[in-house]
Amino acid sequence: MSSSAPLRDPYKPAARVAGQRQDVWSIVNEAAAASPMQPIVNMGQGFFGYNPPQFVIDAAKLALDKVDCNQYSPTKGRPRLKKAIADAYSPFFGRKLDPEKEVTITTGANEGMLSAFMGFLERDDEAIVFEPFFDQYISNIEMPGGKVVYVPMHPPPNGAFETSSAGEWTINMDALEAAITPKTRMIVLNSPHNPIGKVFSREELLAIGAMATKHNLILLSDEVYDKLYYVPFTRIATLSDDLWQRTLTVGSGGKNFYATGWRVGWLMGPEHLIKYVSAAHTRICYSSVSPLQEATAIGFEEADKYNFWEESKKEMKGKMDKFNKVWQELGLPYSDPEGGYFVLVNMAKVKLPEDYDFPPHVAERPRDFKLSWFLIKEVGVAAIPPTEFFTPENAHIVEDWLRFAVCKNDEILETAMERLRGLKKYIKE
Amino acid sequence: MSSSAPLRDPYKPAARVAGQRQDVWSIVNEAAAASPMQPIVNMGQGFFGYNPPQFVIDAAKLALDKVDCNQYSPTKGRPRLKKAIADAYSPFFGRKLDPEKEVTITTGANEGMLSAFMGFLERDDEAIVFEPFFDQYISNIEMPGGKVVYVPMHPPPNGAFETSSAGEWTINMDALEAAITPKTRMIVLNSPHNPIGKVFSREELLAIGAMATKHNLILLSDEVYDKLYYVPFTRIATLSDDLWQRTLTVGSGGKNFYATGWRVGWLMGPEHLIKYVSAAHTRICYSSVSPLQEATAIGFEEADKYNFWEESKKEMKGKMDKFNKVWQELGLPYSDPEGGYFVLVNMAKVKLPEDYDFPPHVAERPRDFKLSWFLIKEVGVAAIPPTEFFTPENAHIVEDWLRFAVCKNDEILETAMERLRGLKKYIKE
Repeated sequence: MSSSAPLRDPYKPAARVAGQRQDVWSIVNEAAAASPMQPIVNMGQGFFGYNPPQFVIDAAKLALDKVDCNQYSPTKGRPRLKKAIADAYSPFFGRKLDPEKEVTITTGANEGMLSAFMGFLERDDEAIVFEPFFDQYISNIEMPGGKVVYVPMHPPPNGAFETSSAGEWTINMDALEAAITPKTRMIVLNSPHNPIGKVFSREELLAIGAMATKHNLILLSDEVYDKLYYVPFTRIATLSDDLWQRTLTVGSGGKNFYATGWRVGWLMGPEHLIKYVSAAHTRICYSSVSPLQEATAIGFEEADKYNFWEESKKEMKGKMDKFNKVWQELGLPYSDPEGGYFVLVNMAKVKLPEDYDFPPHVAERPRDFKLSWFLIKEVGVAAIPPTEFFTPENAHIVEDWLRFAVCKNDEILETAMERLRGLKKYIKE
Repeated sequence: MSSSAPLRDPYKPAARVAGQRQDVWSIVNEAAAASPMQPIVNMGQGFFGYNPPQFVIDAAKLALDKVDCNQYSPTKGRPRLKKAIADAYSPFFGRKLDPEKEVTITTGANEGMLSAFMGFLERDDEAIVFEPFFDQYISNIEMPGGKVVYVPMHPPPNGAFETSSAGEWTINMDALEAAITPKTRMIVLNSPHNPIGKVFSREELLAIGAMATKHNLILLSDEVYDKLYYVPFTRIATLSDDLWQRTLTVGSGGKNFYATGWRVGWLMGPEHLIKYVSAAHTRICYSSVSPLQEATAIGFEEADKYNFWEESKKEMKGKMDKFNKVWQELGLPYSDPEGGYFVLVNMAKVKLPEDYDFPPHVAERPRDFKLSWFLIKEVGVAAIPPTEFFTPENAHIVEDWLRFAVCKNDEILETAMERLRGLKKYIKE
């Protein structure tokens, strides 16, 4: 090597990507692939087991025939989609949204949230995240150099003994205020909540909003499950003009139209926030996928004609209620969701065989990873261990719970229920 | 306001998005929209004026009918696409590419390059970029805190007086070596080059590669125009095993299949580089658009059956030669492209009327912005001023040139030529 070459590893990764602990998705997927119970009923990741509605598929196919729908869209999104979103959401916000200034399209809600953090967080700025959290929030806050400050949510006090509403998971507002420092710039909210299924009440949102106002913070409200609520749903941006001014609301075409692989999301909010989200998005992805933006626009334009939103909600609530009967049969308490398509089930009563052989990467994790592994191997159903969505310090809060996604075909749900009945012999009161 | 609220602007953007000088694309697009010559012939941005080939469109429509093609793809990309790319590129690399470890899919080449910078640049690390550059490189290097170090390319010495090959644009290798410091981690290459149309020769690539080896650097080789070369095309990663080990090669489905709005790109290289690109991509976009990944896979699988790559190259070279006849007629020298679909034309002989009224945001920029504005307003053809792709210090190098994109329908090219003949009265020898 030449004497002028610095003595270093030229391929050393940046710290932001160097830590590669195996993530929950690959642990669960690899276990599922290696299970003797094939095919595994995968209720782990929240993808849909069925296609987008036909009118949206047809719209996508039509878009593929149009030259401009296959080329770059404007960086802030296709005008037709921004208008469709502004038209569809204006009634919910109680104000006329300006499609050019108050809506911006992103490459899925995920890259949309990254764009918000990139738009407002400087190095060492803090963002508050409630536990459990959607895992991408963390790397997305850390990428611009931000610091995550965690505030745990607490399960219903009797969650291990009886089924209760997901609404009974609570935030301690004093703990929230204690977490705020002069470096805090944002609070990240998620309602309806993944994985808890809680829809934050108006009172809770007023309390969180008051904290944002008092401490002069931006609210980033992840509302991607906004069409799936089974109790009244409030958007924090609608609670006052002050809260409108400081809130970015996140939406998702993938969640709304059963197309998690389409990568079409959006942020809505006041111009002084949206314009920097757009600027960051332009630097990250330049623009977002054109034909599927067009299809999503048509989806919004035509949804009412097909009564799609009502049907969609009714269908998902039906799946949820149908599936949860198996927990009632088994006597396992669950957290009855107020929204979304995830259910958390408490498995404290499931006694794992003492001599059961867990591989080291599972044995070293909390009990929910062992429960997940055991269900995959012995029952043939995959679910997600929710301690992945907590800091190690607070993981104990959910170490007896597992998350199941019910956005699957009815036959799959029935197979899952039949298999889960096999848990009975491991349940000790 | 509460006494506990810090005295600050809660909506202050991060520095990385705060500078919002009007970019070249919006200047040109706004001028085009306001021109009296409607409709403007837009040869500015490099989007295609026609659709992807029918077999690829059909593949996309077929994918939309499949449940798994509408849901999340694996974060590193769909196995079918990774395999199709590995199969298609293995002959060009002279080695069998491992689809699981040496290929990763990204949300367009743009987000792929960002992922590479995010994967390897720490704060204050330096990356070398040649001028002119694709403008997104700059923000993508700066986002992880990296510093861009510029090395200018030089036009053919007689470029203002006679047409010459784009290959005659040169890099001074001493200037390149002088730009390398102990903080340098990457060199960014682009061949075929946008906007110059140069295909770097084997000798030039060997010289650049030797520099990377000597100083222990990673090469990021943007080869998105890799199917459009009109002289022999060399990939730097193929020149030695050492260069394979330190090179990330970037490809683009949008450029290959005339679908710039599809946002499907990929990086190829050794596992020790690819794995951190994948890790960064997962944190940025999570996964990329599923149905269009599937369609791109089928595009690669079936391209040879339709002799698509040969036809594609022949067609584009035909458009290029056809269009450039107008410069021959006008006696304006151009830089004859060796690849890609952009041509740089030297307009030193075009005398702008001395009393012409340019708006302030154009008047303050170099002469090429004025040329661009004048062509839009008086001739009805939009082209891009290339000083946008230089630092202010080196902008003078190209202040007499304009960039035209020829990836348009033949009727559009003919209209453009007819209009451009109107330049004759402003040309003074």
